[in-house]
Amino acid sequence: MQFPEIPEIDTHAAEKAIERQARLTKPAGSLGRLESLSVQLAGITAKERPMFPRKAVILMAADHGVALEGISAYPSTVTAQMVANIANQGAAVNVIARQNDARVVVVDMGVAQDLGALSGVVHHNLAKGSQNMRRGPAMSRAMAEEAIDVGMRVLRKQVQDGLDLVALGEMGIGNTTAAAAVGAVITGSPVEAMTGRGTGLDDAGLAHKVEVIREAIAVNHPNPKDALDVLAKVGGLDIAGLVGVIIAAAAARLPVVVDGYISAAATLAAVELAPGVKPYLIASHLSVERGHAILCDYLDLAPLFDLQLRLGEGSGAVLAFPIIESAARILNEMATFDEAGVSQHV
Amino acid sequence: MQFPEIPEIDTHAAEKAIERQARLTKPAGSLGRLESLSVQLAGITAKERPMFPRKAVILMAADHGVALEGISAYPSTVTAQMVANIANQGAAVNVIARQNDARVVVVDMGVAQDLGALSGVVHHNLAKGSQNMRRGPAMSRAMAEEAIDVGMRVLRKQVQDGLDLVALGEMGIGNTTAAAAVGAVITGSPVEAMTGRGTGLDDAGLAHKVEVIREAIAVNHPNPKDALDVLAKVGGLDIAGLVGVIIAAAAARLPVVVDGYISAAATLAAVELAPGVKPYLIASHLSVERGHAILCDYLDLAPLFDLQLRLGEGSGAVLAFPIIESAARILNEMATFDEAGVSQHV
Repeated sequence: MQFPEIPEIDTHAAEKAIERQARLTKPAGSLGRLESLSVQLAGITAKERPMFPRKAVILMAADHGVALEGISAYPSTVTAQMVANIANQGAAVNVIARQNDARVVVVDMGVAQDLGALSGVVHHNLAKGSQNMRRGPAMSRAMAEEAIDVGMRVLRKQVQDGLDLVALGEMGIGNTTAAAAVGAVITGSPVEAMTGRGTGLDDAGLAHKVEVIREAIAVNHPNPKDALDVLAKVGGLDIAGLVGVIIAAAAARLPVVVDGYISAAATLAAVELAPGVKPYLIASHLSVERGHAILCDYLDLAPLFDLQLRLGEGSGAVLAFPIIESAARILNEMATFDEAGVSQHV
Repeated sequence: MQFPEIPEIDTHAAEKAIERQARLTKPAGSLGRLESLSVQLAGITAKERPMFPRKAVILMAADHGVALEGISAYPSTVTAQMVANIANQGAAVNVIARQNDARVVVVDMGVAQDLGALSGVVHHNLAKGSQNMRRGPAMSRAMAEEAIDVGMRVLRKQVQDGLDLVALGEMGIGNTTAAAAVGAVITGSPVEAMTGRGTGLDDAGLAHKVEVIREAIAVNHPNPKDALDVLAKVGGLDIAGLVGVIIAAAAARLPVVVDGYISAAATLAAVELAPGVKPYLIASHLSVERGHAILCDYLDLAPLFDLQLRLGEGSGAVLAFPIIESAARILNEMATFDEAGVSQHV
């Protein structure tokens, strides 16, 4: 599979941002991560003073055949119900996106129930959910490639409509199981360290989920060095779609705001397939879901905050939008020592 | 000194918020601190579905006589220069407040330089800065009381103009020295544990600052059980003004968003003087300034994020406004399971 070329970070713009930060009316370094974030944003966008008026969360929805194995606290029917709720502006991500002036783009990548022509949804249904990975591959390699391609096309369409900042979101009953499998295979971490309670499993449910993931990996023996193989065998259509979004966003010089565990697993696969995406990534929050911290460490991403979230939908990523915008606006709008006539040192 | 009565948290409204959170379309508890924050906000405001359209940061500015002892990386003249910069919309707090639709109310509590009738500043200058606490009390007890009273009046004026959410801010060269002294005396923590680098002291500067604070405490022997005595002897006009803001805000059922080290020291004193303020407090960020974590622990406040900030001005507190509003809007605007027709369990 051919991926688009991803430009390197613009070091000139980043250096200009560093220089400007030193001239703004504040003690050097006193805005901490807002300063380093502003430098990253300048490098990503190749603009000395970047701005992000047009924002979106791209929310990939799909069902997972492995949900048949009883690895979720909710039934598969909830995926379609929640897609309708999101299309109807009723979910958490809608509220946070509305507040932060961001579009919610919900994509049917592979919801099991027929959504018909449900309005407010981008329809790209590739299958009625993935197959049960405990019994065989979640999907063919060709379908994983197609899902990535759809993700790239969805992102490019949004760029055409106007986009400066993108967050990753997902909805899919069973997708923490797929994310844990992808994470365990690619990072080489133990399955039990990568497996969490998802939407709310009890101890017995969690132990069962670990067992199902172990079996799925044993049955499919995905190749850890081949992320496409991993995505096809133990991933999902939502995760593969996000891989495409990440790669196309980096190719378009957009900062990519990673949400929780599922989007981090997609990010892991995207970095394997196209390592050039790495400097375009911003981790928003540290999820409660076990394994997320391992993925963040592996990807060398430091989340901006930890509010004990574990909802998904891109909710935590969109919650980070105002912080990211503050970083950019401080760089752009603050007065310099010279402009304000403020003394710099004793 | 007489303080206004502070109402208790409205447990009925808080319970209604808990009930509503359980009916919203998300796994129970999956929005973590946003959920507990929404419950706190309901209890504070006595509204089942609180909203915060009118927001302000109240920024108390004052000079500190102890700056003569060389405890800051910046000269005292910077206090007045930065007040002018803030009045002129050029400081970090202005940028973040503009972004988040909040007013910046900057109050001259005791700036050394004459600001004349500088527009954009609320003029309540009580003295040309506090006295040098290394040699004697920073101010009289009467002046500390007056500063608290001014803070209460400033807050009430803002409530008259329309206010739903308030952040604490400050500007004053030398005020981390006063904050450390207040914190050390009231909590009983060692001075060296409470003393940080402020705007950027080197190791020698830090050691000298510790020594100055120790001497100030030894010279004035403030009574740890009498917060007014502590504020007068080793506090400052900015800190005392914030104490008044906190108490009057809690009396008016407003959530009070604490910023970094100086506002935490003011909060510590406010809790001593009027313990009823405690449930009205929200800690925004964990500051880099040494001692802030100790004050947060002592006050049993868990900051929402740690972005390695150490600027003050209320910048971190205003940065928390969108998160606080998200918590409230989620409670208010999300669909319930019934409304959205989403299944609740397997």
